[in-house]
Amino acid sequence: MAILVLVNSVFVERQLNALRRIAPDLEIHTDPDNCPAERIEVLYGFRLPRGLAARFPNLKLIASSGAGVDGVLTADLPAHVQVTRAVDPLQAQRLAQYAVYHVLRIQRDMAFFENLQRERKCMRPDAPQETDWTVGIMGLGAIGLKLAESLRTLGYPVLGWSRTRHSHAGIETFVGQEELPAFLARTRILVLLLPATPATQGLIDAKVFAGLPRGAHLIQIARGGIVVEEAMMEALDGGRLDSAVLDVFSREPLPADSPLWTHPKVTVTPHVAGEPRAEWIAAQFNENYRRLLKGEPLENAVSREAGY
Amino acid sequence: MAILVLVNSVFVERQLNALRRIAPDLEIHTDPDNCPAERIEVLYGFRLPRGLAARFPNLKLIASSGAGVDGVLTADLPAHVQVTRAVDPLQAQRLAQYAVYHVLRIQRDMAFFENLQRERKCMRPDAPQETDWTVGIMGLGAIGLKLAESLRTLGYPVLGWSRTRHSHAGIETFVGQEELPAFLARTRILVLLLPATPATQGLIDAKVFAGLPRGAHLIQIARGGIVVEEAMMEALDGGRLDSAVLDVFSREPLPADSPLWTHPKVTVTPHVAGEPRAEWIAAQFNENYRRLLKGEPLENAVSREAGY
Repeated sequence: MAILVLVNSVFVERQLNALRRIAPDLEIHTDPDNCPAERIEVLYGFRLPRGLAARFPNLKLIASSGAGVDGVLTADLPAHVQVTRAVDPLQAQRLAQYAVYHVLRIQRDMAFFENLQRERKCMRPDAPQETDWTVGIMGLGAIGLKLAESLRTLGYPVLGWSRTRHSHAGIETFVGQEELPAFLARTRILVLLLPATPATQGLIDAKVFAGLPRGAHLIQIARGGIVVEEAMMEALDGGRLDSAVLDVFSREPLPADSPLWTHPKVTVTPHVAGEPRAEWIAAQFNENYRRLLKGEPLENAVSREAGY
Repeated sequence: MAILVLVNSVFVERQLNALRRIAPDLEIHTDPDNCPAERIEVLYGFRLPRGLAARFPNLKLIASSGAGVDGVLTADLPAHVQVTRAVDPLQAQRLAQYAVYHVLRIQRDMAFFENLQRERKCMRPDAPQETDWTVGIMGLGAIGLKLAESLRTLGYPVLGWSRTRHSHAGIETFVGQEELPAFLARTRILVLLLPATPATQGLIDAKVFAGLPRGAHLIQIARGGIVVEEAMMEALDGGRLDSAVLDVFSREPLPADSPLWTHPKVTVTPHVAGEPRAEWIAAQFNENYRRLLKGEPLENAVSREAGY
């Protein structure tokens, strides 16, 4: 029994190194074109090329190296193959940190004070009431709940939207397409934390932006494909959006000629909002691998129907 | 019975307007040189000129318009005069917001990503572990505890230091001069939230900076006089401090020729970290004023010995 790790990013490389330290007994291959195909029972990584899974007749598990599985759920995946994802509690915390930072930066108008310092000026504008700054979170998984908790501690009203009904203490929640307009109408800062699934692909479109109050703000830390970027640009240029903080994009890395880099209302970061810890992910995979060998149920198993 | 409000800042002006809306029946004067001195029983405001209190023979209460009372506890204050301060729960929250923002900005190295955007570059450095970034809070009043709670929610280890013994769930606390070195040695980001008293004047001196690990960071949102600014500049230039975020200064407003404005390691804001709400403060004063009339104990009474 052997594992094929697809080392196509520095993250997977770090995880592979960690895995080799933790479990030196594992038989690990890294070259799809030069490995004993019939021995490969596990594919590990992200962004699996279509057709790859079919080359391994004894494949049992695809382990995503990240929290999302949109890069491994290829259409040609045999039905019996299990899929797991990497779930790092610290990653949820880090995404929450990133979003809290930008909510504070927006609401407290920290850029205004940076300009004051440049101009050596003292001015003390009336403080904006945080209670007027409702944060709407789309996606109420572990990350969304962590973010909601952090924001409430700092005094921000929080609304949540999800595809299916959840109930969470202290968050007013909205469900499905039907309740989306009511959620958007009260949201001043929209934070996207949805998984990439066929149902969320292009979900944040011109209609969604039109449903936000004028001068709203967007924090996008989910997956690029969720947002229709042309509609977002129009919302920015038309004044519906006052600013957008983008950590993910429809094409990554963001092409050097993208107008987003220099748009005065846009903050760009290169998919760093919620980096997981390599050691943690490797240990989690190792545990699942032992379970697979013993035929036990796997942790962080993915529903292929739901897509997360 | 009348009140003299010293309108020497835009904050007091906002509070005065709010007070007039809330309690139009109050007899309020604003000119110390043109008011019925024998009727004045309450002085309201901040930065009271020395000698002012003595001009009002029936003075019973000095109500600070802010959380600090260092501006009203003048040496010539008669012993029988009570002193209160303004305590706005939202102000604690706002100071916590400000400090959380800067902790996140420092620890997540947000300035690095701002530079990346300017250069249109994608780079994903290994994420620094938040568990390596212990935040040390000096001053464990309502603000310090709020900040500690917010930081813990986001994964940061928190230490607390105070002059007298407190015990707080989830915070390792240090007390007095004796335990200060142990506190400093483990603090990577030092947040100052101490009141301005004779005991804290110049407390943060060269010895304190020398007690921090090399490359530590300072967030100063207490009172300017607490920090010896020359020692801080030396700590910045010598590498003991990697950065300083300063909202308060030994002289305010910060003089235009201060080297702090342009120091590459210094962030300056003009005393805006924790603005209280005028309406809240005015309502609180109005309540205390009614209590004073009835001879009842006052809320947020200040110990003149402790200085807060």
